[in-house]
Amino acid sequence: MSGEGGSGSRERPLSVVAISIGNELLDGRTADTNLGFAARALGAMGLRIARHATIGDDRAGIRTALEREWAAGTDLVLLSGGLGPTADDVTREALADLAGVALIEDRAVLERLAARYARIGRAFTGVARRQALLPEGVDQLPNPVGLAPGLWLEREGRVIAALPGVPAEFQAILREGILPRLGRMAGSHATRSVALRTMGIPEAELADRIAGLAIDWTGIELAYLPHSGGVDLRLVATGGAEIEARLAAAEAAIAKCFGTDVYGRGEVTIEEVVGNLLRDRGLTLAVAESCTGGMVSARLTRVPGSSDYFRGGIIAYANEAKERLLGVPGALIGAKGAVSEEVALAMAQGAREKLGADVALAVTGIAGPGGGSQEKPVGLVHIAFAGGAKAFARRLFLPASRDLIRERSTLLALDLLRRELESPAG
Amino acid sequence: MSGEGGSGSRERPLSVVAISIGNELLDGRTADTNLGFAARALGAMGLRIARHATIGDDRAGIRTALEREWAAGTDLVLLSGGLGPTADDVTREALADLAGVALIEDRAVLERLAARYARIGRAFTGVARRQALLPEGVDQLPNPVGLAPGLWLEREGRVIAALPGVPAEFQAILREGILPRLGRMAGSHATRSVALRTMGIPEAELADRIAGLAIDWTGIELAYLPHSGGVDLRLVATGGAEIEARLAAAEAAIAKCFGTDVYGRGEVTIEEVVGNLLRDRGLTLAVAESCTGGMVSARLTRVPGSSDYFRGGIIAYANEAKERLLGVPGALIGAKGAVSEEVALAMAQGAREKLGADVALAVTGIAGPGGGSQEKPVGLVHIAFAGGAKAFARRLFLPASRDLIRERSTLLALDLLRRELESPAG
Repeated sequence: MSGEGGSGSRERPLSVVAISIGNELLDGRTADTNLGFAARALGAMGLRIARHATIGDDRAGIRTALEREWAAGTDLVLLSGGLGPTADDVTREALADLAGVALIEDRAVLERLAARYARIGRAFTGVARRQALLPEGVDQLPNPVGLAPGLWLEREGRVIAALPGVPAEFQAILREGILPRLGRMAGSHATRSVALRTMGIPEAELADRIAGLAIDWTGIELAYLPHSGGVDLRLVATGGAEIEARLAAAEAAIAKCFGTDVYGRGEVTIEEVVGNLLRDRGLTLAVAESCTGGMVSARLTRVPGSSDYFRGGIIAYANEAKERLLGVPGALIGAKGAVSEEVALAMAQGAREKLGADVALAVTGIAGPGGGSQEKPVGLVHIAFAGGAKAFARRLFLPASRDLIRERSTLLALDLLRRELESPAG
Repeated sequence: MSGEGGSGSRERPLSVVAISIGNELLDGRTADTNLGFAARALGAMGLRIARHATIGDDRAGIRTALEREWAAGTDLVLLSGGLGPTADDVTREALADLAGVALIEDRAVLERLAARYARIGRAFTGVARRQALLPEGVDQLPNPVGLAPGLWLEREGRVIAALPGVPAEFQAILREGILPRLGRMAGSHATRSVALRTMGIPEAELADRIAGLAIDWTGIELAYLPHSGGVDLRLVATGGAEIEARLAAAEAAIAKCFGTDVYGRGEVTIEEVVGNLLRDRGLTLAVAESCTGGMVSARLTRVPGSSDYFRGGIIAYANEAKERLLGVPGALIGAKGAVSEEVALAMAQGAREKLGADVALAVTGIAGPGGGSQEKPVGLVHIAFAGGAKAFARRLFLPASRDLIRERSTLLALDLLRRELESPAG
């Protein structure tokens, strides 16, 4: 079913298939985020997920799917879900069926479970004990953030790894239990990767400019990963020790080419980068928002410890609020309109003063679907910075849905602040 | 692979399998939202998705997967993705392979495409023309929001429906093209459904109380759909005309039992409900936020037209900001702490006054992971309402991750406002 089926020329060491288990995924209650997380984590090791299936809480169905993968020669099947305590969690049973072994109660797991239940003051019932039942001979993958361990079933060099479906547990076990083992399985096909996160340059322009760089691509693969906040560049290198220097040279050449258009490396977010810059420089921040309605502040405060630098925000949605809370002159709004460079600047200055912050950011725009005009269409957004003796604004035109206009305005406002904080004069 | 395989007792008229196509889903660039949307839309008709697969942009792989489903007797295969103009969009080719027909250029589609390209001022190239190539004899499903039509391939009463992967296009074609046809295919097995959205009652308690109601469940199925904002109750009725009265009676009995714990019907969101209540009552709203950092305001302003009632918000993250912007007495913060009922009330009163609004909402809490204590642990949140001569606060304890504490606080604050606005005295 996958692209790899037809060609024997792939040099990848391992073939991988992901299977998610749970009725809640098939009836629309829950969105599956584990596939994407696993794909990115494995991708960083140079491994691809060849295909993915979602199946219900069905013991025979899970077994059949696994048998099919073993017959197909899949090296790694990554199972997600069905390891909880209730009767519809049947992944353990399906694995035991497949391996032809019994489920036995693991004493160590049982004791950890009993202790955990005692600590949170809940009765350790027969249902809860089910999580200590493991297929005989299976390896355990410790669960640092939950109750049920992950399972690692290996036969003739092929592996079925079963992880809990709860995203935090899935991610922790993948990172701490699966990836190191895969690194060992891959052996001499060791891979290293770097991800450079860019904002402000379209994918096609990135590709054009990278094509013009003198980079030795031997053993290195480049992928473009666009998302609403920009485009990530992922470099994956496969080979021996000599690959290290080549990968570092490629990364350096790209980083030099794009300069401050690269806002970070790996999984770091723009709000974390901004937060670190503010903390390093000992600066406090205030925000004034209109069309984004709190989204800039909500993002900044997602970061634990953001109270170190974030003073607060003012969402001046009504024009009157812009006057009362930010001191924007009513005459200025009347003359230039609430969505104007001048009002954006006045909002930033006002937020800075009212909140007693070192620097401030402001956003005002027309998110639609109503409220646009020929002169000021839906998607017109002004973002402004104020700090020290400096204040400036930038005009954006982002024609899209209301949600996307707000999302992109939020990210580009944060990026404006980042660039200013990173600039030598900033 | 699915729950239906083992039992022949299901009375559902149609078996459904969903397949998503695209390398971007398998490498973690894009999250698949089409599965969840289709599952909920079909679920409302009483149809279940038995299983789901994600496969890459691979012509042979798509054909193999479809052949397998036809061999398995699947009534409807819902394909998503691979209908775009570029060379890696190969769903059209795979369908033609499967049906043993040629791809022919459809004149009507071609003309629509050319006109659309002319309107947006882009060159209508050979690549773009690919979207007019359709498998011979296939039915088209009009695409009201995009370029490529959906495809409906029917053989011996079984159907493969291929839709674009772009969520807005997938959703529009599913709603306007697929669901009506499925209604006809289901024939006498007509279904009707209602969804009641509840907040504030755990799923187990909902189930207990519903079990105690005198409801004739003949032909009616009840599903509990929990999510971070509460639990949705979905009633799906299958049968003839007589089912209508029974469904209405069941809905009325449940609605009466839970009263204001039901905040809406269908897909309506809590911020839409709150917005409609404010507009109907001619009231304006101000918000003061600490731990939610702008999330309450961001949600309220997601709703188009929210400027009719939302004056603005103050994100008083630092204590000093609570004093300066909201007029919360420093002595009160010193005596009671920033996370206290008294400060929540003062924040709500302050936001109302500063923004000149009729009613105000405030949230203050400890989202963690740091900042908790024995007395005031992570997860402690106070929400407050102020309006008219009335002001009150509620204490919540929501031990969870930082993200979840913030999300639940946001929703429960909006729900507090809704209940107050719905109350006879409100």
